[in-house]
Amino acid sequence: MDEFDIEVLADPELADPVLVEGLPGVGHVGKLAAEHLLEELESELVRRVYSTHFPPQVSIDEGRTQLACAEFHAVTPEDGQDMLVLSGNHQAQDSQGHYGLTDTFLDVAEDFGVERVFALGGVPTGELIEEYDVLGATTTDDLVETLEDAGVAFREDEPAGGIVGVSGLLLGLGERRDVPAACLMGETSGYLVDPKSAQAVLEILQSVVDFDVDYESLEERADEMEEVVRKIQEMEQQNAPSPADEDLRYIG
Amino acid sequence: MDEFDIEVLADPELADPVLVEGLPGVGHVGKLAAEHLLEELESELVRRVYSTHFPPQVSIDEGRTQLACAEFHAVTPEDGQDMLVLSGNHQAQDSQGHYGLTDTFLDVAEDFGVERVFALGGVPTGELIEEYDVLGATTTDDLVETLEDAGVAFREDEPAGGIVGVSGLLLGLGERRDVPAACLMGETSGYLVDPKSAQAVLEILQSVVDFDVDYESLEERADEMEEVVRKIQEMEQQNAPSPADEDLRYIG
Amino acid sequence: MDEFDIEVLADPELADPVLVEGLPGVGHVGKLAAEHLLEELESELVRRVYSTHFPPQVSIDEGRTQLACAEFHAVTPEDGQDMLVLSGNHQAQDSQGHYGLTDTFLDVAEDFGVERVFALGGVPTGELIEEYDVLGATTTDDLVETLEDAGVAFREDEPAGGIVGVSGLLLGLGERRDVPAACLMGETSGYLVDPKSAQAVLEILQSVVDFDVDYESLEERADEMEEVVRKIQEMEQQNAPSPADEDLRYIG
Amino acid sequence: MDEFDIEVLADPELADPVLVEGLPGVGHVGKLAAEHLLEELESELVRRVYSTHFPPQVSIDEGRTQLACAEFHAVTPEDGQDMLVLSGNHQAQDSQGHYGLTDTFLDVAEDFGVERVFALGGVPTGELIEEYDVLGATTTDDLVETLEDAGVAFREDEPAGGIVGVSGLLLGLGERRDVPAACLMGETSGYLVDPKSAQAVLEILQSVVDFDVDYESLEERADEMEEVVRKIQEMEQQNAPSPADEDLRYIG
Repeated sequence: MDEFDIEVLADPELADPVLVEGLPGVGHVGKLAAEHLLEELESELVRRVYSTHFPPQVSIDEGRTQLACAEFHAVTPEDGQDMLVLSGNHQAQDSQGHYGLTDTFLDVAEDFGVERVFALGGVPTGELIEEYDVLGATTTDDLVETLEDAGVAFREDEPAGGIVGVSGLLLGLGERRDVPAACLMGETSGYLVDPKSAQAVLEILQSVVDFDVDYESLEERADEMEEVVRKIQEMEQQNAPSPADEDLRYIG
Repeated sequence: MDEFDIEVLADPELADPVLVEGLPGVGHVGKLAAEHLLEELESELVRRVYSTHFPPQVSIDEGRTQLACAEFHAVTPEDGQDMLVLSGNHQAQDSQGHYGLTDTFLDVAEDFGVERVFALGGVPTGELIEEYDVLGATTTDDLVETLEDAGVAFREDEPAGGIVGVSGLLLGLGERRDVPAACLMGETSGYLVDPKSAQAVLEILQSVVDFDVDYESLEERADEMEEVVRKIQEMEQQNAPSPADEDLRYIG
Repeated sequence: MDEFDIEVLADPELADPVLVEGLPGVGHVGKLAAEHLLEELESELVRRVYSTHFPPQVSIDEGRTQLACAEFHAVTPEDGQDMLVLSGNHQAQDSQGHYGLTDTFLDVAEDFGVERVFALGGVPTGELIEEYDVLGATTTDDLVETLEDAGVAFREDEPAGGIVGVSGLLLGLGERRDVPAACLMGETSGYLVDPKSAQAVLEILQSVVDFDVDYESLEERADEMEEVVRKIQEMEQQNAPSPADEDLRYIG
Repeated sequence: MDEFDIEVLADPELADPVLVEGLPGVGHVGKLAAEHLLEELESELVRRVYSTHFPPQVSIDEGRTQLACAEFHAVTPEDGQDMLVLSGNHQAQDSQGHYGLTDTFLDVAEDFGVERVFALGGVPTGELIEEYDVLGATTTDDLVETLEDAGVAFREDEPAGGIVGVSGLLLGLGERRDVPAACLMGETSGYLVDPKSAQAVLEILQSVVDFDVDYESLEERADEMEEVVRKIQEMEQQNAPSPADEDLRYIG
């Protein structure tokens, strides 16, 4: 196997598509958002990307195995924006893998004529969130303007650590290839899988890219999470008078 | 030395052989099973595979050294299925080594005309085992059926972490080369080297692949292990009334 | 992207320039010194170097991203020595990255006709410093003499651990290419970012290389640091009678 | 710089030389032994080997730097065996570096017509040693015999962990190139730099390879070490009645 290996599964024509990336990360915000798009919209699996920088691992589903990979689905709504959605269960295991995979992802995007890239992710705040702001970062002044109009917050030097992994490199390497790219980062506590943050990110994306999805299933999942949090807080309050959001520190 | 280096020691003709892999892993189930085959059946060492991804190490036997490697033995019973048995003392040290070694192993298998791959291993349950179920995972629906008939259990999303290392990649990369492959995983506590689990795996393999071996030596080894466990439990019960299987948690 | 990738931003002619390197390291002495040169002297960004051995990361400044890189600025004072100043926020993540990046930096230096290299850094003493000595190490006897005349201390086997990272390799690989190179290491406690040590290093450099800078901003920053130290010492003395410089051990 | 880079410093003709390797390892036994040969016998530096798998580091000696490397010295006594002595301060940083460096060392050895390789090292026993046995491991039956006659001990499966690093690979890769190779391992506690163990190894080597060295300086160093041990034991006995050799466990 090559270091980075593209499997072609289908080759539909897409009209000026945008790339939407949601790989695992903080609060699984990006992954939840990308998977929600694929659940709600009709899509076709068009590419798998394998890499020796992914874990040496197969997953199992009812006895059948699938080699570690990232997947591209094409979404082509009758009226609405064509999209390529990049999702998966793995990040690269080392720095060179991150760079090489992102280059490979941008190769696939270029093959389909992608003209804009949206990387989706979460930004940890360390505390429970009432209002889910979405932070932005982009490679062009144009995109800053478009996203500010859509309600995205741009804050000086925030997030302080920059953006790490594939999401960050889609901007860094995208800029070097002249593909405009933006990262939408939903605020999230960082302690929990966060469907509400994923919804906040998707609502912004929806107002920039033309698509229409329902959020009922994400809201249900958010309710379940809140129920879990409530029970933990009750248990904790019976045991010790520690502040509620401290209690959540170790729930991954 | 090349990154992956095949040493040719013999080149017998094999008739539609199957590949049986048993490298080190959980409970050393796969390794015990593969080594038992080589003890019980006549075999010929046909290939050694060296790699810069193996530990930089020689083993010593009566003053003579052997560079870290994996070995292929050919088993050609007069009446019975020809087999290639892959065994050794090492796994690769990094992700790229796992991928590259597995590709090299499949190259060797293809040279000998291998038509099916069986990866043998253990799956940790975390508790002492009464009845040794064997879990399965495969790359084709055909193999699911064959193995179910032989008594293999297929459980949804189990093992939860998928299959890691060479055993997993023999399925993942095997599928990409159109070589049907299955993994047979004997349940094992995960605390002890487990000859009983190895026997359970071999009994399944025996009913799918045509060979005939005696299990006396594995049973003796299992009795020795049980004797060890019994003594530890006695010692523990004299000291503290902790539950017996907890006592075994740290015996590797 | 290539493993090491040079982006050309401008290509001015430089007259016998010297290379001055200040990447992150002990007390950020080298980085502070290089950045002070760029603040005080007019300069032009001429090259960026990207690498898959840098962290997979973009930094963010007012919503716009910048891929991890190192930067070369050209300084061409009307009367004074032409300089190439190498600065950045990252070191390589592994040994091969350090070697490859340093080779790439020397390639850039050769393109501009660099005839001498000065690597700037700090050497940790483990205690608060009254008088800021600057230690030296070079690849030629000529440079030893020049630097001794400028007040640089050469001590047998000091620093004991040698010089690690890009600064060390600029000398090690520079010597192999016949580019004379020296390292100027300001003594620093190792507990704090140290603008005074950076000033001590620049004052030596100034007497060897012909340039003219003001130190007011570095002195202000040093005063701020001393204020911080004083406050910490006061707090500590009220709590426990531990020796003052012990108190600073964990302030990074 | 290439991944592995040979610098040619001199090219004397050697008559059927043997290679003697002593890089850092357990008790620094091999390194002490190789350095003692170079102190006692006239020698010429003939090769330096650099590698991106060595630490990114220069050492400093009176202000002059030396890039991390391994060195080959030629020893050509008027009457006695020609030798190539391989010494240095570093091991490779990763598995692929160990393999690649050892291959490079064997390339140099072949250039000089080396016909036998002796890797020197220590084997940790975990206790203070009265009589310094030297264990052996080789690639040929011939060498087993020769070394047994010289007093080397060959013990089944000892050392249990095999031989790791360059010493082990000189045998493993040497065998694959048909260069007979042996490893001489002096028993050593593993807690201390051990000149006595180095002397035991050299005395064996001297009876197999024809050379003549004085051991006075090694014996002096051993006396100094014993003085250190005696003082520590005294201090410990005044404080607590713990067994003497336990006291040495953490003296590196």
